[in-house]
Amino acid sequence: MNPDALTNVLDGRWAPLRREVRAQLAEHAYDEPYGASTEDYRAWVWDKLSLLAKTGQPRYGFAREYGGGGDIGGSVVAFELLGYGDLSLMVKSGVQWGLFGGAVQLLGTKKHHERYLARIMDLELPGCFAMTETGHGSDVQHLRTTANYDPQAGQFVINTPDVGARKDYIGNAARDGRMAVVFAQLVTGGESRGVHAFLVPIRDERGEAMPGVEIGDCGRKAGLNGVDNGRLTFHGVRVPRDALLNRYGDVAEDGTYSSPIESDGRRFFTMLGTLIRGRISVAGGGISATERALALAVRYGERRRQFENPGTGQETVVLDYLAHQRKLLPAIATTYALHFAQEELVRTLHDIQGGDDVDERSQRELESRAAGIKAVATWHATKSIQTAREACGGAGYLAANVLPTLKADTDVFTTFEGDNTVLLQLVAKGLLTSYRDAFHDMSTLATARLVAEQFVDAVIERTAARKVIERLVDAAPGRDDDDALHDRGWQVSLFEDREKHVLEGAARRLRRAAEGDAFTVFNDAQDHVLRAAKAHVDRVVLEAFVAAIDRCEDAEARAMLDQVCDLYVLSNIEDDRAWFLEHGRLTSARAKSVVAAVNELCKKLRPHARTLVDAFAIPEPFLRAEMLE
Amino acid sequence: MNPDALTNVLDGRWAPLRREVRAQLAEHAYDEPYGASTEDYRAWVWDKLSLLAKTGQPRYGFAREYGGGGDIGGSVVAFELLGYGDLSLMVKSGVQWGLFGGAVQLLGTKKHHERYLARIMDLELPGCFAMTETGHGSDVQHLRTTANYDPQAGQFVINTPDVGARKDYIGNAARDGRMAVVFAQLVTGGESRGVHAFLVPIRDERGEAMPGVEIGDCGRKAGLNGVDNGRLTFHGVRVPRDALLNRYGDVAEDGTYSSPIESDGRRFFTMLGTLIRGRISVAGGGISATERALALAVRYGERRRQFENPGTGQETVVLDYLAHQRKLLPAIATTYALHFAQEELVRTLHDIQGGDDVDERSQRELESRAAGIKAVATWHATKSIQTAREACGGAGYLAANVLPTLKADTDVFTTFEGDNTVLLQLVAKGLLTSYRDAFHDMSTLATARLVAEQFVDAVIERTAARKVIERLVDAAPGRDDDDALHDRGWQVSLFEDREKHVLEGAARRLRRAAEGDAFTVFNDAQDHVLRAAKAHVDRVVLEAFVAAIDRCEDAEARAMLDQVCDLYVLSNIEDDRAWFLEHGRLTSARAKSVVAAVNELCKKLRPHARTLVDAFAIPEPFLRAEMLE
Repeated sequence: MNPDALTNVLDGRWAPLRREVRAQLAEHAYDEPYGASTEDYRAWVWDKLSLLAKTGQPRYGFAREYGGGGDIGGSVVAFELLGYGDLSLMVKSGVQWGLFGGAVQLLGTKKHHERYLARIMDLELPGCFAMTETGHGSDVQHLRTTANYDPQAGQFVINTPDVGARKDYIGNAARDGRMAVVFAQLVTGGESRGVHAFLVPIRDERGEAMPGVEIGDCGRKAGLNGVDNGRLTFHGVRVPRDALLNRYGDVAEDGTYSSPIESDGRRFFTMLGTLIRGRISVAGGGISATERALALAVRYGERRRQFENPGTGQETVVLDYLAHQRKLLPAIATTYALHFAQEELVRTLHDIQGGDDVDERSQRELESRAAGIKAVATWHATKSIQTAREACGGAGYLAANVLPTLKADTDVFTTFEGDNTVLLQLVAKGLLTSYRDAFHDMSTLATARLVAEQFVDAVIERTAARKVIERLVDAAPGRDDDDALHDRGWQVSLFEDREKHVLEGAARRLRRAAEGDAFTVFNDAQDHVLRAAKAHVDRVVLEAFVAAIDRCEDAEARAMLDQVCDLYVLSNIEDDRAWFLEHGRLTSARAKSVVAAVNELCKKLRPHARTLVDAFAIPEPFLRAEMLE
Repeated sequence: MNPDALTNVLDGRWAPLRREVRAQLAEHAYDEPYGASTEDYRAWVWDKLSLLAKTGQPRYGFAREYGGGGDIGGSVVAFELLGYGDLSLMVKSGVQWGLFGGAVQLLGTKKHHERYLARIMDLELPGCFAMTETGHGSDVQHLRTTANYDPQAGQFVINTPDVGARKDYIGNAARDGRMAVVFAQLVTGGESRGVHAFLVPIRDERGEAMPGVEIGDCGRKAGLNGVDNGRLTFHGVRVPRDALLNRYGDVAEDGTYSSPIESDGRRFFTMLGTLIRGRISVAGGGISATERALALAVRYGERRRQFENPGTGQETVVLDYLAHQRKLLPAIATTYALHFAQEELVRTLHDIQGGDDVDERSQRELESRAAGIKAVATWHATKSIQTAREACGGAGYLAANVLPTLKADTDVFTTFEGDNTVLLQLVAKGLLTSYRDAFHDMSTLATARLVAEQFVDAVIERTAARKVIERLVDAAPGRDDDDALHDRGWQVSLFEDREKHVLEGAARRLRRAAEGDAFTVFNDAQDHVLRAAKAHVDRVVLEAFVAAIDRCEDAEARAMLDQVCDLYVLSNIEDDRAWFLEHGRLTSARAKSVVAAVNELCKKLRPHARTLVDAFAIPEPFLRAEMLE
């Protein structure tokens, strides 16, 4: 089968842009500098970044009036595609144009845009996104850097009160950054107004640190050593009043604070919400790297032979072993699922941030999706790339075979742009809030069957494929039908049912928080809450897969995607079948048949493994590896 | 509680040696060269290796008559302890003294010992262990390097027929090795005699490659970059007849082959079996690195705070979160279990290889244990070190905090010294063979209840703690008793029952192999077979834990170990509870209570987390990290 038909489905809405960027990547392919010293690697990335600045790519996400492309989704997609290549380069570009440039665009106003955007796009002004502090990562609201407004001078004074408030892990800080968007507690008239962002020059033209700015180097890291992560400490650094990125909050000359959003909390979350693009981009980059790792492992698994088959006298290709298939094929299926979920997420982002009037509910939904898919996709990356490396044995341990770099570089994805565990809690919190909103009196829950039925509409918001899915669910066979395992409606119902049940249970447990020691109640239920979030994300991801199949017009590709989706679903159920058994959703016999069905699907898809990874359409130069020569 | 009492139990039989080596490590502590170039790192390791040669440690494993310590177990223990420090140094020492020196000692005879052992011990003769080829790793029996005997010259001619037969990933080859133990197919009189080992000089005194020896460099790797892995290609290299390590097979001057073991197959496996020490050492090194990673993560988890507890107004120490405890505490409990299993394994190795007359059954049992524990321990290392790094967030990604190096260095442990998947199959094969030996006619199986009862004695050989365990099992409460979860006898019975049932099922499936296409039948059952091996290893590990508790005389330590053992068992059951549910071993209610019990144990052990990792007694200099300053 020709992989192109699958590629078309995977490419989705930004197919033309993907084709263009892939062609550019293939044309300007480079040899990744494995084993380079930190300094050499940083210099290499800087050079490549400068070349990248010359292509149109970094401009996609910026407003047209300043020379940008006005294509938010396209900017994320272009970033994702960089994930097929050197990931330091991808991350560095994300810091410059996504985080730094994005903050100026989204938190700043016209004066900032006019002054800076063009210089940011063409890399004349390299910058940092200085949010995280040594002592505060996930808990951004409690950052401790201060920005005190001095009305006499008309300036903000940026200060790092102690080492815990030092800006840490800041990309672009150790070597290249000239300016930083610094997140700090704004204080004016003696009153704290919460976290705001300020433009602070950190280096002068000659690359020397500005007065009062102390710059440290995070040094060697597990991976991404081409990115110059550093530390910033501010000793009473003065910046003009204009340095405040004032879209959501401003300080008048006399120090009067004003904001279109009254509540400090809401303002803070609105600000953070606009920065969601970074999180979505990381998920996409992680998926690209996973695709590359799996493509390499499949190619090696198809040529590597070990142990003689006594029946044929030939040594067996390792991908013909069930254990090897079980390592790679469910991982490929899950990668397809996440790829489709990511594509849908980018579309939603594009439509919401591109629209004029963002309704809060949609924005909240987007943030929840972004958090959930980022967590699940990056954990999947860590696990699958590890599996891919092990599947290549000793060869997988050599830098010349790419996998070590992929593993080390993506490792941090699970904890940056939001720690995954914290993100899943955010997802759960959102679900529980919708839940509460939908049923004001939660005490009726336990008895009201009605509630359970309404639940799906109220909380389980269906994704793009709403209608398709309703049709599938309605047509689903009863639980005892033996064909049910491969019935999409049955599968979706099972995922929905799990989500609903786990969430209901968590809600019931948390109600007690109102009564006793809230922390203890929440903490004791933490595993339950995380499980609820995971069940939710799994359902969202499945629905995206269903929608993608529905879009597919090529019959052969569709049939193939149907099998891949089955493998995604059934391996997911297999991993979690204890839950389904415990809650009477699967009988023992059915649970065992899930395991058998996964084996069967591995066998069926084995001959198509190469097609499935070829369909990712990774530019061929990035699939060069010594072990494949 | 004072951790010393726990340390005493962990230290086991080689406690005095452990204390001595730990003191040495602490005294000669070094700063690990994070981020060094490959060349600098290799030079650094060489220097440290030379210092190590001056201590008595490398001598432990060699025969006293040549200046060794005659303490096989001690040599493994000393190696394990190096696992608290730089792992390139550990692996390089393993290559020199364990693999290279070990092969000369165990496969060679007096002439080789006299000529080489002293020079190997003091590092005057650095050497390699050249077994793996580019095309053959796990399948050693089909290596393709040849050693043809030329009776005219009285020499062997070593040849690499093609690139697939090139020796690959060979430690000590790229930079330092002067000699290599080369595994090759011995051919004499036109007849192939299977794989034998030959001493082949690869570099002269000035470090130049010997004539006919082509030396390549594997280059940068994921980790262990202080070890100079290389490639060796032999172009008709001639070595004298004496170069054959001739303990198990010899060639007379005229080319006549002789061996104390007639069967080529048995001879091969006997030779390999003597080399089991390397595999056991890797398991131990992996466990040490895991202990170090967990100790670092616990220390950080106890000081890192994030998010305010609304009840107290204080930020919460992250180790107080259930999700964080669930990441680290079950991993610590499993590490304890594996530590004890490893200690028992080393004792068995010591007693068997130190004895004069090795009975084949014990040797086979040792090999199976070694394979199983190596697979389980190194996968545990990969997973737990990853978890530890994620538990430290961004800090865990910085080289200055050690975890990235631990992750990258240990990563290859899952695939070297035997690919884990292949090793577990070896374990299963051994079990199935014992099974067949015990019941000649497997067809009676399905009906004979008697057989099932005899099974435990015949196949499930109990470990050191036989009597204790029988007593516990006999006293175990019935399945419905609510206290059963914490009853050791019930736990052991559950593990035994699982092992027996999975193994029986696998045996039944494989019987069909005699009928149909053997490869297909075996392959279709591969996941089942691997599961049988895993269930077996889990039981062996649990019994080692039970034996350790039984040895412990300190009441407080014993009570603590009891809880840790509970957590090991219950988190193991939790992970596998789908199986227990599917097979009617646990009711839904009981399965849910297992999850609750794990949460409860995490909470109970939380205040002792630091004590538990302190008890590993890792030399303090190796627990220095920037994040702990």
